[in-house]
Amino acid sequence: MTTRDGFYLQNDNDLLQKGLRCAGAINPPTNVGGKRSRVYDVIVVGAGYSGLTACRDLCIAGFNVLLLEARDRIGGRTFTAEVDGHLYEMGGTWVHWNQPHTYREMSRYGLTELLLSHDKSVGVNYYTALLNGNRQIIDHEKAHAMTEKAFRKLCDVDGKLGREVMPLPHDPHFNPKVKAWEKMSVAQRLGQIRHDVTEDEITLLQARLSSIYGADMDKAGFFDVLRWWALGGYTMDGLYETGDEFKLPTGQSSFARCFFDEALKTQNLAYSFNTAAETIEDKGDRVIVNQHWEGKRLICTLPLNLLEHIRFEPPLSTAKMTAATRPGNINHGAKVHLEVQGDALRSWSSASFPVKRACSAFGDGTTARGTTHVVSFGVNKSFSTPEEDARDYVADCKRLHDMDVKKTIWHNWSTDPYSRGSWCMYPPNYSFEHLSALQERQGNILFANSDWAMGWRGYIDGAIERGGLAAKEVSEEVFSSKI
Amino acid sequence: MTTRDGFYLQNDNDLLQKGLRCAGAINPPTNVGGKRSRVYDVIVVGAGYSGLTACRDLCIAGFNVLLLEARDRIGGRTFTAEVDGHLYEMGGTWVHWNQPHTYREMSRYGLTELLLSHDKSVGVNYYTALLNGNRQIIDHEKAHAMTEKAFRKLCDVDGKLGREVMPLPHDPHFNPKVKAWEKMSVAQRLGQIRHDVTEDEITLLQARLSSIYGADMDKAGFFDVLRWWALGGYTMDGLYETGDEFKLPTGQSSFARCFFDEALKTQNLAYSFNTAAETIEDKGDRVIVNQHWEGKRLICTLPLNLLEHIRFEPPLSTAKMTAATRPGNINHGAKVHLEVQGDALRSWSSASFPVKRACSAFGDGTTARGTTHVVSFGVNKSFSTPEEDARDYVADCKRLHDMDVKKTIWHNWSTDPYSRGSWCMYPPNYSFEHLSALQERQGNILFANSDWAMGWRGYIDGAIERGGLAAKEVSEEVFSSKI
Repeated sequence: MTTRDGFYLQNDNDLLQKGLRCAGAINPPTNVGGKRSRVYDVIVVGAGYSGLTACRDLCIAGFNVLLLEARDRIGGRTFTAEVDGHLYEMGGTWVHWNQPHTYREMSRYGLTELLLSHDKSVGVNYYTALLNGNRQIIDHEKAHAMTEKAFRKLCDVDGKLGREVMPLPHDPHFNPKVKAWEKMSVAQRLGQIRHDVTEDEITLLQARLSSIYGADMDKAGFFDVLRWWALGGYTMDGLYETGDEFKLPTGQSSFARCFFDEALKTQNLAYSFNTAAETIEDKGDRVIVNQHWEGKRLICTLPLNLLEHIRFEPPLSTAKMTAATRPGNINHGAKVHLEVQGDALRSWSSASFPVKRACSAFGDGTTARGTTHVVSFGVNKSFSTPEEDARDYVADCKRLHDMDVKKTIWHNWSTDPYSRGSWCMYPPNYSFEHLSALQERQGNILFANSDWAMGWRGYIDGAIERGGLAAKEVSEEVFSSKI
Repeated sequence: MTTRDGFYLQNDNDLLQKGLRCAGAINPPTNVGGKRSRVYDVIVVGAGYSGLTACRDLCIAGFNVLLLEARDRIGGRTFTAEVDGHLYEMGGTWVHWNQPHTYREMSRYGLTELLLSHDKSVGVNYYTALLNGNRQIIDHEKAHAMTEKAFRKLCDVDGKLGREVMPLPHDPHFNPKVKAWEKMSVAQRLGQIRHDVTEDEITLLQARLSSIYGADMDKAGFFDVLRWWALGGYTMDGLYETGDEFKLPTGQSSFARCFFDEALKTQNLAYSFNTAAETIEDKGDRVIVNQHWEGKRLICTLPLNLLEHIRFEPPLSTAKMTAATRPGNINHGAKVHLEVQGDALRSWSSASFPVKRACSAFGDGTTARGTTHVVSFGVNKSFSTPEEDARDYVADCKRLHDMDVKKTIWHNWSTDPYSRGSWCMYPPNYSFEHLSALQERQGNILFANSDWAMGWRGYIDGAIERGGLAAKEVSEEVFSSKI
């Protein structure tokens, strides 16, 4: 099974391949053909984790569900590519037991065995910091201590490491005092702490923040950094342990398949892949997609940056449309995998700022062939062609450390018409103004996406949160109408 | 609605009342009468969170379920008593967003608003430490620092605060190195760190450990302390934030009702309260309870200390019986609520060691009448009569601080025939030997209880974990047999 998504470059012969082997590709792509067999109880648009959760919950509860997906695969902004027997996560990757919706599902599907991304014990066991053009080699502990010092300063907005200003990270607006911080960009907040930290410390911090944000510091809202910090237990260790440490050994696409397969097994799931929603019309007694598919309710799980590109009838409310067009998700972060000759770089890590393309890279595993899997994060600014992406990245990573790159594997989420950005991060002054409008239903249409989750927004967890809630709301209504 | 469970003593006239007003009491107690109407798809024995989760999931999936419960209420080792308009949690109380199974359900039922137990800002805002008979008044920060220093020493078994020995707190046996620590009692581990901390620090720590364990230090396994520490993000702040900070404003019984009511709404739930399971016979094609109720499968959610008191036919496996009779849950912790005149003690906290009865007490809220709700933890050693319980507790709490106690409200989980102990804590050398035997199914009978959960064992979270897994396993089997 292959998906059209993703790119694979063989670096020695510069051979580019579009599309990757992926367990999340669904073949045949439909079990209903083009025919409109019925008015479904519920149509779910989008087969990311939000849509999959909604489908599964509704199918188990006995409703007939139609799933429409533009891509040829499940998973949305997550998918696992298999290249020469090694698994690469092209989007959302890391999971943790403190992500309640995700872990509940992992536990339910028996997927609690975990792989560690970081192994600081072998080979080139150090940290490269390329700070303001100055390349330094330091040990992991020192890099950790430098970053942590600056990170603590950044997030200690109340003398209590953020606990007072954001006591409930899953209800981030709870304390009204947080509003002042929500108006601020990361750049502004950095300005406030600059005198308390060294130039190297703040530069290192900015490299790490760039990999969190995928945007320039003046475009990124400080609120989302504070949210992640609070979600990580108000510590940097917690933030990184929940954010980039534990992977699913069988990959995200296998996890996503658990939801899809369970829904399918109920015999209540109809689906059509390669089917992009263009128009969604709420006729009062039913919702019609592309003037063809009909359902009593519709759960729209499209990402924030897509909403303005779908024709809704009646149109989206002014509040929702304003939120959708600002834009809300400013993250154009990139993630590029490198297969590197030899096993030396397994314990290597790095950060770089200012960002040309890559802002961090680290050893993420060793393949069965003994080569090293290096993962690199950066920022898509130019939205360049695939080949340029890969060449830029490789050049940037080589500035960090000498390496013999055999393959480059990535997906460009910014130019992808079905995501138009990476994991969601808000600009300053966005959450208080727009979050509730994004969550609001409109008639028979519910909106469920991680981009407006309460807790782990921008994570897989937020997607499952939203999908589950939408399914529950719809269940109660459609069930009531049946009895 | 009232339950038979719990005691309420009016201290001024020494009037004792058995039974408390509780939203979890179910009336009428059955919707099937005594009649055996059918062979149910699944019988669930026990209406704690494990049983309720299993019932709800199975009912939603369309199976017909019979719930049998010995008590007159749902909730098992949790219930909320309403006394003069104030809510008191008699058992499991605190919840947190890092408890994945619990928080998934809280989010699903819209119960994410939370009450804080601790408010260190008003009235008698200090800490009383009664250490080796010596009563000291110290500030909260100092008490915190003293306890934390000793707690860190206790749990720093690897120079990495436990991260190496227990890297996956939801898979606590993962690193075989942990086995050496699992054989150890808390007393033995305290012996190892005694030279690194002061007498006051270690005594304060023992007071806190007593409230975690409800047992003497030589009976308690160190492994479970290490598990809680790891689950709390390897910090004491995390341990206490997840363990005794956030409460549900409407109470646990209301939360439990969400599960029960959702199951009921499917019209697939039959139930009979006041119905203690005495015999459970697996006949191969069906399971029969009390020679009367019949189901294709049975999910037994009775606590660990009850298993040996039910007659199973065929008998429990040797491995399970060995685990059940050791005993496995050594926790005879007590929790006693006091309504105290005036609002002064809201911010007061305390600890006491060696333990007579109470080992800690702290302000947990202010009633609408302006009196203070003080909660106290201790150890049931004598299993005395209810009146003696209350008098002992009041006397012990008054040794900690002068107070005018108006009411005392509690339940004795140790003498309760349906719990025979408090939240589960294992003795030394138990988990590696018995955990998997406790989890194992036997023919058509599955066993689901927080007492053998993988993650938050002894918490509500562990109950939901086990109940959900059992329901999923049974669903797949019974569904397959239907198509």
